[in-house]
Amino acid sequence: MELTVYLAGQIHTNWRKEVQKQAEKKNLPLKFVAPQTNHDRSDQIGEDILGKQPGDIYKDDTASSINNFRTQVLMEKSDVVIALFGEKYKQWNTAMDASAAITMNKPTIIVRPESLVHPLKELSNKANVTVETIDQALDVLAYIFE
Amino acid sequence: MELTVYLAGQIHTNWRKEVQKQAEKKNLPLKFVAPQTNHDRSDQIGEDILGKQPGDIYKDDTASSINNFRTQVLMEKSDVVIALFGEKYKQWNTAMDASAAITMNKPTIIVRPESLVHPLKELSNKANVTVETIDQALDVLAYIFE
Amino acid sequence: MELTVYLAGQIHTNWRKEVQKQAEKKNLPLKFVAPQTNHDRSDQIGEDILGKQPGDIYKDDTASSINNFRTQVLMEKSDVVIALFGEKYKQWNTAMDASAAITMNKPTIIVRPESLVHPLKELSNKANVTVETIDQALDVLAYIFE
Amino acid sequence: MELTVYLAGQIHTNWRKEVQKQAEKKNLPLKFVAPQTNHDRSDQIGEDILGKQPGDIYKDDTASSINNFRTQVLMEKSDVVIALFGEKYKQWNTAMDASAAITMNKPTIIVRPESLVHPLKELSNKANVTVETIDQALDVLAYIFE
Amino acid sequence: MELTVYLAGQIHTNWRKEVQKQAEKKNLPLKFVAPQTNHDRSDQIGEDILGKQPGDIYKDDTASSINNFRTQVLMEKSDVVIALFGEKYKQWNTAMDASAAITMNKPTIIVRPESLVHPLKELSNKANVTVETIDQALDVLAYIFE
Amino acid sequence: MELTVYLAGQIHTNWRKEVQKQAEKKNLPLKFVAPQTNHDRSDQIGEDILGKQPGDIYKDDTASSINNFRTQVLMEKSDVVIALFGEKYKQWNTAMDASAAITMNKPTIIVRPESLVHPLKELSNKANVTVETIDQALDVLAYIFE
Amino acid sequence: MELTVYLAGQIHTNWRKEVQKQAEKKNLPLKFVAPQTNHDRSDQIGEDILGKQPGDIYKDDTASSINNFRTQVLMEKSDVVIALFGEKYKQWNTAMDASAAITMNKPTIIVRPESLVHPLKELSNKANVTVETIDQALDVLAYIFE
Amino acid sequence: MELTVYLAGQIHTNWRKEVQKQAEKKNLPLKFVAPQTNHDRSDQIGEDILGKQPGDIYKDDTASSINNFRTQVLMEKSDVVIALFGEKYKQWNTAMDASAAITMNKPTIIVRPESLVHPLKELSNKANVTVETIDQALDVLAYIFE
Repeated sequence: MELTVYLAGQIHTNWRKEVQKQAEKKNLPLKFVAPQTNHDRSDQIGEDILGKQPGDIYKDDTASSINNFRTQVLMEKSDVVIALFGEKYKQWNTAMDASAAITMNKPTIIVRPESLVHPLKELSNKANVTVETIDQALDVLAYIFE
Repeated sequence: MELTVYLAGQIHTNWRKEVQKQAEKKNLPLKFVAPQTNHDRSDQIGEDILGKQPGDIYKDDTASSINNFRTQVLMEKSDVVIALFGEKYKQWNTAMDASAAITMNKPTIIVRPESLVHPLKELSNKANVTVETIDQALDVLAYIFE
Repeated sequence: MELTVYLAGQIHTNWRKEVQKQAEKKNLPLKFVAPQTNHDRSDQIGEDILGKQPGDIYKDDTASSINNFRTQVLMEKSDVVIALFGEKYKQWNTAMDASAAITMNKPTIIVRPESLVHPLKELSNKANVTVETIDQALDVLAYIFE
Repeated sequence: MELTVYLAGQIHTNWRKEVQKQAEKKNLPLKFVAPQTNHDRSDQIGEDILGKQPGDIYKDDTASSINNFRTQVLMEKSDVVIALFGEKYKQWNTAMDASAAITMNKPTIIVRPESLVHPLKELSNKANVTVETIDQALDVLAYIFE
Repeated sequence: MELTVYLAGQIHTNWRKEVQKQAEKKNLPLKFVAPQTNHDRSDQIGEDILGKQPGDIYKDDTASSINNFRTQVLMEKSDVVIALFGEKYKQWNTAMDASAAITMNKPTIIVRPESLVHPLKELSNKANVTVETIDQALDVLAYIFE
Repeated sequence: MELTVYLAGQIHTNWRKEVQKQAEKKNLPLKFVAPQTNHDRSDQIGEDILGKQPGDIYKDDTASSINNFRTQVLMEKSDVVIALFGEKYKQWNTAMDASAAITMNKPTIIVRPESLVHPLKELSNKANVTVETIDQALDVLAYIFE
Repeated sequence: MELTVYLAGQIHTNWRKEVQKQAEKKNLPLKFVAPQTNHDRSDQIGEDILGKQPGDIYKDDTASSINNFRTQVLMEKSDVVIALFGEKYKQWNTAMDASAAITMNKPTIIVRPESLVHPLKELSNKANVTVETIDQALDVLAYIFE
Repeated sequence: MELTVYLAGQIHTNWRKEVQKQAEKKNLPLKFVAPQTNHDRSDQIGEDILGKQPGDIYKDDTASSINNFRTQVLMEKSDVVIALFGEKYKQWNTAMDASAAITMNKPTIIVRPESLVHPLKELSNKANVTVETIDQALDVLAYIFE
């Protein structure tokens, strides 16, 4: 039984590579999908495809429509969602993706540092599992295959 | 036709009163519901009901379970969701509520200042309507009754 | 038992008044809701609320987000949808609303002149009932109360 | 990860071949399905299978039941829908298919020329992404696999 | 708490009156809805509204579209379905309505004579409760209010 | 694209073999599933597995629970349902399966002789396509692959 | 805003009266529904309505079909479920009702003594809120109306 | 056609091995999944991954969140659920899993000894099939493939 895992979360560090590396080390039958992790590409994708827009709000709306399309396709293909929060950035897309996943009954793991316990408490409570490190998230996934 | 409107968003200013006042001025047949807006009560509700917990993470989890229960009951009773974002705070509950509402097909309006256009672009794009002021959100609701 | 009926269709003639008048004549316990029927208002609503946009495509997108919001709120409140097609105009909103209603399992009546039998054949076939006149549509609604 | 794409839209030009050719050029793992693109066959299919009908309206209804059956089977198998509008024809089936797909939460791309921005504004706003050319639609699909 | 009960079943005897009379005698807060019970009207309704059809199969299809529309509206308004089978007639509409109700999770009671135990065994097994008489069906409804 | 087809209907003739043979002749990528077609086994299965029951009604209920289990598993695996009605027998299971399939949005074809047009008119009208012969049903399936 | 609350749980003590009394003392706009709380009636209801059965297993199955019918009608009418576990009895109906409610997204509170923390841990974790006393459950409901 | 079967139930005996052995003997194309059957591991998994908790209630809640995550992933992958009850233990997880499965329309078989007929009567009545032995459950699964 192979599972597809959507990795929601910030795209400023390469934490997804770490997830993948550990999954391989543990020999877990997991396939990972994710939002566009090239930040510039993600911001430019609207104008890259549809051409110059008349201002930032329109550029952003165009990009976001394509990013949302991508997320919707990939999340529907996923069995599990991992949503990682870090200490920097607003990370509203992470919150949006985690909440959408939970509402769609996708089993969801939240990864967040101890410093974010309080502001993320309602979202953590709605998620299936909340952990502090990528290692722990992979341990939870590994537990499915025990 | 009366509509029930869930007012998601921060609880540090009294923007919900402003919404209510304007709805009355416009004579709109709207009933408003909201999360607990007393911040201390919202943080303490777990210990208020279940007694002292062994640390902040447990206190937070207990409080959040009761806050989420309240939100779920009230959101299921609502026809429309307004989610307001301000410039301060992480506001992950606002993002969580807006995303859950959209995923449940509740018609959703996002209110956010221009400064937040970029970080909220994907959520804005998924919402039905995004505006910048409470006035505009009420104009959108008033438009239903024209 | 009162029913709420969403009247989808073009807004260039006052066919909705005709529907309402006949429902009253037949003493049917029906309440009608509809899209914005003031054409100019419907096209301007985006700029009316959100201010001047940088071009027609943006003005249109803003208006349509508010029109769609209105439709979603009202259609979810409706028990039945009547979608009327005339010989003029593209009427893609009528097709969109009828198809959305059918997909959501809202019982749906299509009203269309004989000249449109062929181009509307697939949509007619998916609707519950297809008739040619408003009179006939009201007869179908009256039949519920016999 | 292979995706199945339903290509809704008119059947008078061979735009689907163009889509397929470009997908192959880009090496995208896509499989395409579509309505019957032989126009005569599509109109005759009712009588082809069920025999002579007593008039056009009956011939049309019989054909449309089989066309709708085909569409329902194929759309349920699809991960993504592309709906292309051109300047000619009423294209109500395209609007019907796009609206059904969006209501079923199938990620949907609309392709339409600039001249149709206004009449398609509500449907565009409900779709995930709207573009003007097949090239752009394929760019959006390619973005999923980056 | 008032409940609306859809009374599916044959329209050749006045068993629905019996149900209503007993509900009144027991003072149960029930409201009853039903298919068209005037058999001729039910068969003619298509031609009554849409005019002469070119043969029986077309007359039947037109009538059935309006009968199905009526049933869908009323069943969606119902909290409970009672489906009564008698020894005569094929009663496929009764089986169709009961099966649709069960699939939609409407609590469903089947009333059938002992002679029909065998041919109705699978449908009985899927229904919530199966009884032999109208009296017993009313006893089951009365039990909700104890 | 292979499709799985559930063949609902009476089990007194070997019409399913005919379907299969024609599908092979037409080289259609179809896989067929069906209820238990050994009539005795179908009636006895409850006692075969659970032992002697204290009367026919109990024997029937036990058998039907296992038959319904089988049907539910197989129908959820199916992309399309064909429901065949003949002139003999009450065939309430056929009506039950067809109605359940339609309510679950499984694309459904009804096969019935002309003599059954009238009593099956409402069910026919709800199904996607109604034909008179197995040949025609296979033609409809073949049309998907054109 | 009045809420309907389903009170799942054992019927050997009169804890439901306690709930009701406290709700009145707190002036909460709550309406309560529940399973049959007369234990004998609940066990006999099958034979009371359908007559003598040929053994306990059949008597039990008949009773349970009517009890389940009652629960399904009342739970669908409810906005909130409270499920109370005590130290005696197996209480599988309580577990069944709580799990069904959670799966249907009914906001659910579990009340259980400290001694049952361990055996109920998975169900508690799936419920929205778990408390130890009726007082606390009412406090949670009261919090909705603050 | 291979089916995936979730084996809910107590983890104190190795009944799952028995199921598997019999499925192999009968050559049934079944794949089995299950909750964590190592009891200690199941109780410790929270602390194993997240570290020492401040008391049993917190240890239990952490463990259960990971156990529930596992169950949700595996049950969504399953076509059928078998829930086995024995005479010892409260087995609330078994009741919870069976009820969730039934509510999600997963075809469900309950296995329970005769001594549990009465306390499990409502759950048995909601399940598709109830049997007394593993042998019988396998016979029911085998029946699908006849």
